Amino acid sequence: MHRRRFIGSAAAGAGFLFGRNVPAVAHAGPGAQLRVNGARIAERLRTLAQFGRNADGGIDRVAYGDADLAARDWVMGAMREAGLDVRMDTAGNIIGRRAGLDDARPPLMTGSHIDSVPGGGNYDGQVGAVAALEVAQTLADQNVRLRHPLEVVIFQNEENGKVGSKAMRGQDPASYLDLMTHSGKMIRDGIRFIGGDPARLSEAARQPGSIAAFLELHIEQGAVLERAGVPIGIVLGIVGIKRWAVTVEGFANHAGTTPMDQRRDALLGAARFVDAANRVARSVPGRHVATVGTLTAEPGAPNVIAGRALLTLEMRDLELDTVDGLFERMRVEADRVAAETDTRFEFTEIYRTLPARTDERMRAVIAEAAGELNLATQSLPSGAGHDAQEIAQLAPMGMIFVPSIGGISHSPREFSESVAIENGANVLLHALTRCDRHPDLRDAHAL
Amino acid sequence: MHRRRFIGSAAAGAGFLFGRNVPAVAHAGPGAQLRVNGARIAERLRTLAQFGRNADGGIDRVAYGDADLAARDWVMGAMREAGLDVRMDTAGNIIGRRAGLDDARPPLMTGSHIDSVPGGGNYDGQVGAVAALEVAQTLADQNVRLRHPLEVVIFQNEENGKVGSKAMRGQDPASYLDLMTHSGKMIRDGIRFIGGDPARLSEAARQPGSIAAFLELHIEQGAVLERAGVPIGIVLGIVGIKRWAVTVEGFANHAGTTPMDQRRDALLGAARFVDAANRVARSVPGRHVATVGTLTAEPGAPNVIAGRALLTLEMRDLELDTVDGLFERMRVEADRVAAETDTRFEFTEIYRTLPARTDERMRAVIAEAAGELNLATQSLPSGAGHDAQEIAQLAPMGMIFVPSIGGISHSPREFSESVAIENGANVLLHALTRCDRHPDLRDAHAL
Repeated sequence: MHRRRFIGSAAAGAGFLFGRNVPAVAHAGPGAQLRVNGARIAERLRTLAQFGRNADGGIDRVAYGDADLAARDWVMGAMREAGLDVRMDTAGNIIGRRAGLDDARPPLMTGSHIDSVPGGGNYDGQVGAVAALEVAQTLADQNVRLRHPLEVVIFQNEENGKVGSKAMRGQDPASYLDLMTHSGKMIRDGIRFIGGDPARLSEAARQPGSIAAFLELHIEQGAVLERAGVPIGIVLGIVGIKRWAVTVEGFANHAGTTPMDQRRDALLGAARFVDAANRVARSVPGRHVATVGTLTAEPGAPNVIAGRALLTLEMRDLELDTVDGLFERMRVEADRVAAETDTRFEFTEIYRTLPARTDERMRAVIAEAAGELNLATQSLPSGAGHDAQEIAQLAPMGMIFVPSIGGISHSPREFSESVAIENGANVLLHALTRCDRHPDLRDAHAL
Repeated sequence: MHRRRFIGSAAAGAGFLFGRNVPAVAHAGPGAQLRVNGARIAERLRTLAQFGRNADGGIDRVAYGDADLAARDWVMGAMREAGLDVRMDTAGNIIGRRAGLDDARPPLMTGSHIDSVPGGGNYDGQVGAVAALEVAQTLADQNVRLRHPLEVVIFQNEENGKVGSKAMRGQDPASYLDLMTHSGKMIRDGIRFIGGDPARLSEAARQPGSIAAFLELHIEQGAVLERAGVPIGIVLGIVGIKRWAVTVEGFANHAGTTPMDQRRDALLGAARFVDAANRVARSVPGRHVATVGTLTAEPGAPNVIAGRALLTLEMRDLELDTVDGLFERMRVEADRVAAETDTRFEFTEIYRTLPARTDERMRAVIAEAAGELNLATQSLPSGAGHDAQEIAQLAPMGMIFVPSIGGISHSPREFSESVAIENGANVLLHALTRCDRHPDLRDAHAL
């Protein structure tokens, strides 16, 4: 059978690096001819981009803000359009279910998040969320029913520490409920704000084995795929992350009357630490990263020597031992800076996620789906944390990356081409249909 | 005549370093026996400290805030208690007038400010304000009338750039009206808030020669007097100040997916500049100071590489040439950091005050008054800016310093002993009575 359907629309494909306008190879399974609707994905992404849109063309849709709430309402409506039964769990995760032929099976699950960092872009999370919707919509439109139920999930509050997916995998709520978020709300109050119930989070927890497989499509957020000219990334694993709140204590004093050699300048101490942490991180080879993304000085006036400075330190690697080793070296640097500047450093670990390897069979399923669609693949680690790494504790987990132009993310200039997203969604669709037929996946969590 | 009155109360003097419980030397002029009421000064300082009091025991009484407004009301009441005719000029400066024997003479003027930096202490400005009130109250209580009118002035908004005194000396309002203040109000709106009229600021301007002399008592805010064990400082001059807003432009990106060698981290650039500016300032001998007191990163999240960092740079010296020379060297450092970090630096001068030497005759008058009161003196420059330096353009200007314990200022731990303040107020009182009789001071502005 000669197939006339192409990967990527011809119009969108003109400007795209990776789209290959060649016929896809047919395969034997049911639904092999299924393709997502790229125009519908693009339209939904445009609509979603209106919630929290800012003057830079990006979005300020931090979790638990008004824009987040409005976007969640819109998502629930889109789920219903796609024929899904919509519910919200007690953590505030939005779950749309499509019944399976054997509805007693554990569900296949796919989804992502729609909250953003402050000043974020229009692709991080949203691509996977809209692609998951599109998979469900395509199955509904084509009247295809999988053997397993399909659950499309929109995890709440990914950007402040994957709150929704942590609740789903049953992490102790005491570890996060009282943390502050970008919205200015504590997580506890944020969960109430979006309609969840922080007192009943245990009801949102799923049991290991209760999900047949989890797949998340996401933009790469780095430049590996674009530089390699490869349209589909198969994620090897997700780095672990540690974050510390760092307080530098000095002594606030008058900037005019306090001689340079009598100061205890907390901001000077903090600045030297920022530089030292960067030098330590760059002093050893590897894919680890270390970032100070926030720094404030108190009291914070041009004519007052800062008495206190607050900053955050974050490190990521596939091996937390690497992170811990770097951190010890940074603490030595902090001791040196403290002595030089007559300040005091205090480090408090405020966040930690373990590295998560993807399931080998899921990587194979993604590779097969991409091959069937005639799309080249490359394996790579994810430097970003994802909800998928939490769900990896419940089910075989896989992740599909599509290229980010310029490797830009968490920025209004974050961008992925429409045809790249369409390709990713098609791989997601076919990876899910392959999972549906996979002999191992019913109880593969045990492997 | 053997005088029994002591300088400083015996009770308060017990814990004080500088008070000398020896009889004062009588002098020939009227009012030579006058002494301020130290207990009343202390009581008024305690009352004033309630407006904007914060949990640290300091005050948050930034200009144009509610606490500032309430404190201003209280001051006007205290002025009326001291028998002064109270008015507010169009800039919002509060002026209390005591008629002179020859009321057509230009007034003697003394005063200070009552606004604070965020997280400030209870002595900066307030000591000079309450001492000026006390001088007027003492003259009223003792029924002493000077030849010149006496004006007690509370300048509005010293801490955001001496707004009130600038208006009084007739600086072009366009240079400051649209600046933001710690209160969150623009100066224009702040002036309205306290009852002034930003459209009629020219009416607040005084002409050179229209003030016979200006004296300001202030805490030293440094540790020179305390270390020397000297109770009265005679200020040689007030340093000039320049401030710049510094913007560091990088590129916001995802902290997990952007390799260390592909970052344009604005916060890293800013941190290296803070360190470099400090090194430059300390590389040459002198009393100049350089301070970065504020630094913020945008967008400001632990998992986002900062795309922009904003900081303020301030330098002070009695010679602005020194400041300019250091600044040029700092810009060279900024260029180096920009190249290292792939960021861009932009410097905007946002504030400048010229150095102001005190009037030689005023220094002599202060020295004579202190000698009469048997209080040792030391001459020193002021590293802090003061309203007095603005009024120096209108009248012969002098400043009296009292010791700051530990040299701490702009901090809740700012402190001066009651007896030190009482001594300073007595020197202020007697310096003013000496000015009143001074043959030069009627039109001394021309000198």
